[in-house]
Amino acid sequence: ASALPTSFTGVAQSSNPSTIMRYGFPSLDNIRTFDDFVLAYDKRNKNPHWVFEHLTPDKLPSSSASSANRKNSNFFEDDKIHEKHRSLLSDYKGSGFDRGHMAAAGNHRHSQQAMDQTFTLSNISPQVGEGFNRGIWNNLEKYVRSIARNNPNTYVCTGPLYLPKQESDGKMYVKYQVIGKNYVAVPTHFFKVIAIETTTGEYEILSFVLPNQPLKEDIPLKTFLTPLDAVERSSGLLIFDKLPRNKVKLINHRKP
Amino acid sequence: ASALPTSFTGVAQSSNPSTIMRYGFPSLDNIRTFDDFVLAYDKRNKNPHWVFEHLTPDKLPSSSASSANRKNSNFFEDDKIHEKHRSLLSDYKGSGFDRGHMAAAGNHRHSQQAMDQTFTLSNISPQVGEGFNRGIWNNLEKYVRSIARNNPNTYVCTGPLYLPKQESDGKMYVKYQVIGKNYVAVPTHFFKVIAIETTTGEYEILSFVLPNQPLKEDIPLKTFLTPLDAVERSSGLLIFDKLPRNKVKLINHRKP
Ligand SMILES: [Mg+2]
Ligand SMILES: [Mg+2]
Repeated sequence: ASALPTSFTGVAQSSNPSTIMRYGFPSLDNIRTFDDFVLAYDKRNKNPHWVFEHLTPDKLPSSSASSANRKNSNFFEDDKIHEKHRSLLSDYKGSGFDRGHMAAAGNHRHSQQAMDQTFTLSNISPQVGEGFNRGIWNNLEKYVRSIARNNPNTYVCTGPLYLPKQESDGKMYVKYQVIGKNYVAVPTHFFKVIAIETTTGEYEILSFVLPNQPLKEDIPLKTFLTPLDAVERSSGLLIFDKLPRNKVKLINHRKP
Repeated sequence: ASALPTSFTGVAQSSNPSTIMRYGFPSLDNIRTFDDFVLAYDKRNKNPHWVFEHLTPDKLPSSSASSANRKNSNFFEDDKIHEKHRSLLSDYKGSGFDRGHMAAAGNHRHSQQAMDQTFTLSNISPQVGEGFNRGIWNNLEKYVRSIARNNPNTYVCTGPLYLPKQESDGKMYVKYQVIGKNYVAVPTHFFKVIAIETTTGEYEILSFVLPNQPLKEDIPLKTFLTPLDAVERSSGLLIFDKLPRNKVKLINHRKP
């Protein structure tokens, strides 16, 4: 119980931000930095928001020459994420979805520790297993590695999307399943945007969007090329916005 | 076209974060600071993520004594938000939804400029008009003002929620409409959490969640009291986490 202050005088002052925010800042993007990738965690959807990698030929030894093996890696909960917002192994268990890597394990074979880190659940989204994570998405990851083996620098940004669809009432709706006690979102789609620095110091960008569904493995990957602008609008991100545009020679195989 | 580097020697090094992120950071929370409120903008949903206010009795003159009038205020697009992520007046037009204030206009009557700023679309979410924005949500805003007039300091955090629901297949889904060319999300619910500093320097917290639906105006507001923990988990936020817990005497009218 409290009393109305009996009087006040003078002109009301606006509050400065530090007063308004005195008892805590509800969120700042949860940036997590690992040995070989950087990610932002989406605390509402309990998914990565985006994951960034930098790949080079020397970081991509062949399977046989590599010092890491994914059989030695285990999925683990990211205890740097607040307990209220952390996805758990139990959320995925029995859900019917794979624990899908955003930074691919196979991109980080040059050290066991780097590979192990890709198994943190903050790098993981629920993916359809058969026909997606174990099919066409895996093909896309291999394609990115083949590019990265052949160019000096390859930058990869990967993340989930929650795309709207028109329903029979003519209106647009976003709809996605959530799994587990923490309601981990099952993204409707995933994007992967890569910026390739060629030996001449110029850049090529490829921007893919794939639906989180069982897909035929023989669909050509180029079918999924999607304007970068569409990825940026729907994800709420700006991707490679600091890449000098005059050095970008091709976007999705076309002159920009 | 580029060539595989002909040789490389030595051990692959992990990339440091500044190399990985060399060509841009896809997102940092979009914090917007106004004269009298602070907000974070959700660039994916084109809605506020959370909005914070600090209210005091001297900032809440009676309608008759106030120097501001909402008839002088106009909704406007927030050009500090990147064009790809900005909600537009045209997105709301003809949508059937009200442009609902998160920081209430009526909380900022002490200056016309402060009130005007609450009309930025980055402070606005699509709300059901009849029976919600113009009904029970408005009642809640009035109730908060009555509290703020009677206590030295009142902190208010308001924002949208996108809550899952079980469907007939037994699974949980998040589903919400999106409006306009920019697919502005229509939240399923809204939260309002207030921390009241009483004259004795102690605190009381009230945490409300209301569905974005037409509701009977005579439903008591206390019906919508919801554990703060549930709001934090579903919003992905931590709210008033820096408020010393030993000074919090009541949460939703109960001892914590
Ligand atoms: Mg995978
Ligand atoms: Mg309103």
